[in-house]
Amino acid sequence: MRASQFFISTQKEAPADADIVSQKLMLRAGFIRKQAAGIYSWMPMGLRVVRKVETIIREEMNRAGGIEVSLPVVQPAELWQETGRWDAMGAELLRFKDRHERDFALQPTAEEVITDIARRELRSYRALPKNFYQIQTKFRDERRPRFGVMRGREFTMKDAYSFDRSAEDALKSYDNMYAAYRSIFDRLGLTYRAVAADTGAIGGDRSHEFQVIADTGEDAIVYCPNSEYAANIELAEAVAPAGERAAASAALTKVHTPKVKTIAELVDFLKIDIKQTVKAVVVEGAEDEAVLMMVRGDHELNEVKAQKIAGIKNPLTFASPAAIRAAFGANPGSLGPVGFKGRVIADRTVAKMADFVIGANEDDQHYTGANFGRDCAEPEVFDIRNVVEGDPSPDGQGALAIQRGIEVGHVFYLGTKYSAAMNATFLDEDGKPKPFEMGCYGIGVTRILGAAIEQNYDDKGMIWPDSIAPFAVAVCPVGYDRSEAVKEAADKLHAELLAKGVDAILDDRGERPGAMFADWELIGAPHRVTIGDRGLKEGKVEYQHRRDSEATAVAADAILEHVLSKLV
Amino acid sequence: MRASQFFISTQKEAPADADIVSQKLMLRAGFIRKQAAGIYSWMPMGLRVVRKVETIIREEMNRAGGIEVSLPVVQPAELWQETGRWDAMGAELLRFKDRHERDFALQPTAEEVITDIARRELRSYRALPKNFYQIQTKFRDERRPRFGVMRGREFTMKDAYSFDRSAEDALKSYDNMYAAYRSIFDRLGLTYRAVAADTGAIGGDRSHEFQVIADTGEDAIVYCPNSEYAANIELAEAVAPAGERAAASAALTKVHTPKVKTIAELVDFLKIDIKQTVKAVVVEGAEDEAVLMMVRGDHELNEVKAQKIAGIKNPLTFASPAAIRAAFGANPGSLGPVGFKGRVIADRTVAKMADFVIGANEDDQHYTGANFGRDCAEPEVFDIRNVVEGDPSPDGQGALAIQRGIEVGHVFYLGTKYSAAMNATFLDEDGKPKPFEMGCYGIGVTRILGAAIEQNYDDKGMIWPDSIAPFAVAVCPVGYDRSEAVKEAADKLHAELLAKGVDAILDDRGERPGAMFADWELIGAPHRVTIGDRGLKEGKVEYQHRRDSEATAVAADAILEHVLSKLV
Repeated sequence: MRASQFFISTQKEAPADADIVSQKLMLRAGFIRKQAAGIYSWMPMGLRVVRKVETIIREEMNRAGGIEVSLPVVQPAELWQETGRWDAMGAELLRFKDRHERDFALQPTAEEVITDIARRELRSYRALPKNFYQIQTKFRDERRPRFGVMRGREFTMKDAYSFDRSAEDALKSYDNMYAAYRSIFDRLGLTYRAVAADTGAIGGDRSHEFQVIADTGEDAIVYCPNSEYAANIELAEAVAPAGERAAASAALTKVHTPKVKTIAELVDFLKIDIKQTVKAVVVEGAEDEAVLMMVRGDHELNEVKAQKIAGIKNPLTFASPAAIRAAFGANPGSLGPVGFKGRVIADRTVAKMADFVIGANEDDQHYTGANFGRDCAEPEVFDIRNVVEGDPSPDGQGALAIQRGIEVGHVFYLGTKYSAAMNATFLDEDGKPKPFEMGCYGIGVTRILGAAIEQNYDDKGMIWPDSIAPFAVAVCPVGYDRSEAVKEAADKLHAELLAKGVDAILDDRGERPGAMFADWELIGAPHRVTIGDRGLKEGKVEYQHRRDSEATAVAADAILEHVLSKLV
Repeated sequence: MRASQFFISTQKEAPADADIVSQKLMLRAGFIRKQAAGIYSWMPMGLRVVRKVETIIREEMNRAGGIEVSLPVVQPAELWQETGRWDAMGAELLRFKDRHERDFALQPTAEEVITDIARRELRSYRALPKNFYQIQTKFRDERRPRFGVMRGREFTMKDAYSFDRSAEDALKSYDNMYAAYRSIFDRLGLTYRAVAADTGAIGGDRSHEFQVIADTGEDAIVYCPNSEYAANIELAEAVAPAGERAAASAALTKVHTPKVKTIAELVDFLKIDIKQTVKAVVVEGAEDEAVLMMVRGDHELNEVKAQKIAGIKNPLTFASPAAIRAAFGANPGSLGPVGFKGRVIADRTVAKMADFVIGANEDDQHYTGANFGRDCAEPEVFDIRNVVEGDPSPDGQGALAIQRGIEVGHVFYLGTKYSAAMNATFLDEDGKPKPFEMGCYGIGVTRILGAAIEQNYDDKGMIWPDSIAPFAVAVCPVGYDRSEAVKEAADKLHAELLAKGVDAILDDRGERPGAMFADWELIGAPHRVTIGDRGLKEGKVEYQHRRDSEATAVAADAILEHVLSKLV
């Protein structure tokens, strides 16, 4: 490609409403242009990356046995009503009426449509397994679209759906997709983790998120540096501390703690180690009754874990101040298990504590030296907290670490949630109809661009992996229109790179060197070759990787090999 | 591809609501599945063809200097309001509100969004010319969706938009696109014509439709078999008959014609040649006044031509019966120019007639022997009729013929219609802002499939051109699972074809030969190789083109070369 025949439109400043690095850089580099909140046009430079990402995904999906379809963006309400999602989904499902007043929605995902197709097309067990996928426009009417293409309203998603005969086969399909996703993200050239994730209300027992590691990520990823263990913070297990609980050694003592409402204030007031304190929260049980939950003072309650406990309201619901007063005789800030007659649940770590400090169920009063079994009943024990850095890995392979990540893919074992709701069955070998065992597998195609940039940028701009760079190599002649030697060398290298199948661009726009280099640094072409008269006189040109701090002189007649050797 | 790893879903019968051949065949062959009126899922077999069509279009658009973008499906009302199309477009523009009650539309086309981008990005004449295109989902809320993907609501369109500095440059861009379209349709392997088309309300003077020739087409295409002349029926010029008008030879005679309302009845009643009769219609002029228009009895008024005459209402509006009675003193069926005081417009052919038969402006009365200049004033003369087969070609190269066609592409010189409305300007060399000169260029990607089938089918199914066939070659082993020799020969040929870059499928499903052949005839794979034990014993396999009435025996060791020689 020649730059003069392409469209390069860089800007010095990002619009004021851009709120993260990737969004600012994509706007400055002319990858996208905003048309409305969360709705962007893909400009030529950005679209090249989208297409490369799509191609990698398509190739790996095909290799894994996926079969491509294309499902409508505009979907009839009837299918969504069959699963109840027409009503259950919030305002993110954009609903509208056509000219005949019939209800439709814009697809945020396509479980209903593909399940409808499966029940019409896959009549027999002999037709299974099948995995259908599409790479298509999706729409989610986010309340507050933000972060550019990371949380936009219109976006491109690859969504795949597997149909199997049994749960066992469905998990094979799941593992097959998991492996395909690894291949995809490997080829994308991104640092990522596949993390075990919560399956939420759907209730299947297998779910992984593919997270691109980036400090700016919204999600916390827990992993073990010594093993393959990785999970998102909602799911990561906080194991019980090793060893037995110490014996009680202090007496239960009521302490006046005026105006102390928080753990920080308590620690400050009593001059104690925060690890000696216990934090109490009150949630509603299934019968609206108050249930006391306790985590260590420096830990955080994990609501996803807490709401999965039998007899606890799901989603987790905190008790009202009035209900708390009625149950405990005190206000939040001084609550504890001593004297409380209701259900008491302790985190595993709390259950191993002795001589701890806890609220006394009297305003402005705490107990020190509290002990289970002696001062109150033994609590029920569950894992109800978020893990923290340094916690032992559940696989026993060392201490856990935490990173930030951006979720770009998700594999999910669905079971029969959709097939049962839609009466989507096949005839099994025994002649009886059975609902399909399903899985769904999403990749946020356009979101990957944002995530890739959040992971790979510096103060000059983006830094693309070779495989998805808008152009892998920028050939930058200095004086292309003035020097015949420069023109000849640049044209030659450009043609040779193209002949080798390298996606190279020749910047023949006639920009001054500073502006030209700044453009390619902003756009993030990973490899740059600069060709100038001065160098050519000595038989030299310059090579610079986007991560190199300076250029390297290379013999002009060796530059092709040099560039090829640098390409991944 | 192996059939066992793909998804083949053929049906014996098409659904009862399918109304044309292409729709029936696409449903039967498992190319599409209906989700709602005019809304289809693309199944794997159909999507392969869509992708091949898209690839050809993309390659030729890139070759012609087009730059790919992707514009949002969901577009904000504000842009559509700037051009007035938000109000001017009918219910086909699907409008809806997002969760914040802001107005949006689903893109039926994207002039507004791309013009918005141009005014933000193309600041200087140095940035011109530019041609941006996208291949994207479109939506048009047709009142009565029909003909499957030919007149669906959701469809894929390639839409391109050119931006130029001057009308002269814009016409160069137009010609460039015209040439690119020729390359595209040539590569698609379809019989088509590029026909001059009316520019309608936009008023530019250059427009061509690309019509796929098919007897079932909705459009009439006029062409000259001896030259390049082709136009759609709305535009095709009906030239004046050669020679002077004959002198009047008959006397003006009033004839009682009881109950005669139509030309057919008149011809029958008077026993005259229809070519001696004149048909009169009354339309409204700009001031609502009645205007008489006349075409020969066997000709049809061309409304598009008629409404372009200065002083005539556009769109053409027929006068009410009451207005006709007031102006002529008679009812429709007996109208004519004799004694009428208003404006009289005659078609060129009528203007050359002498001694003609026409209504007498009295109910149940006609004149025979009427003559212009003698019995009434000379009329204004315009081309206001549709051409008919045998009319002289406007380029003087012989007689015109008429075919039916399906419009699959349109190139259109827009001028400054959109740029002026949206104040989209660039700074010209003289430092002054000028509106862009624009063109727009559409191809109905998914419609091409319907058109291709309407042009190429027989009673067994579709017949695809090699370039866009879902699979170019079907390798059909008989007894793949029973005969090692058959399996070996089929696997070998399949692998060799793939290695040569031929899109071949190996039908390893184990279907019986009759069902297998019927599937591939329905699906329309252009080339089929049948491999069976009996033939192999004599060193033979069978080759059959989809248009061949029977198979040809070919030496097994020559089959690869044989197939390759048959591929286009």
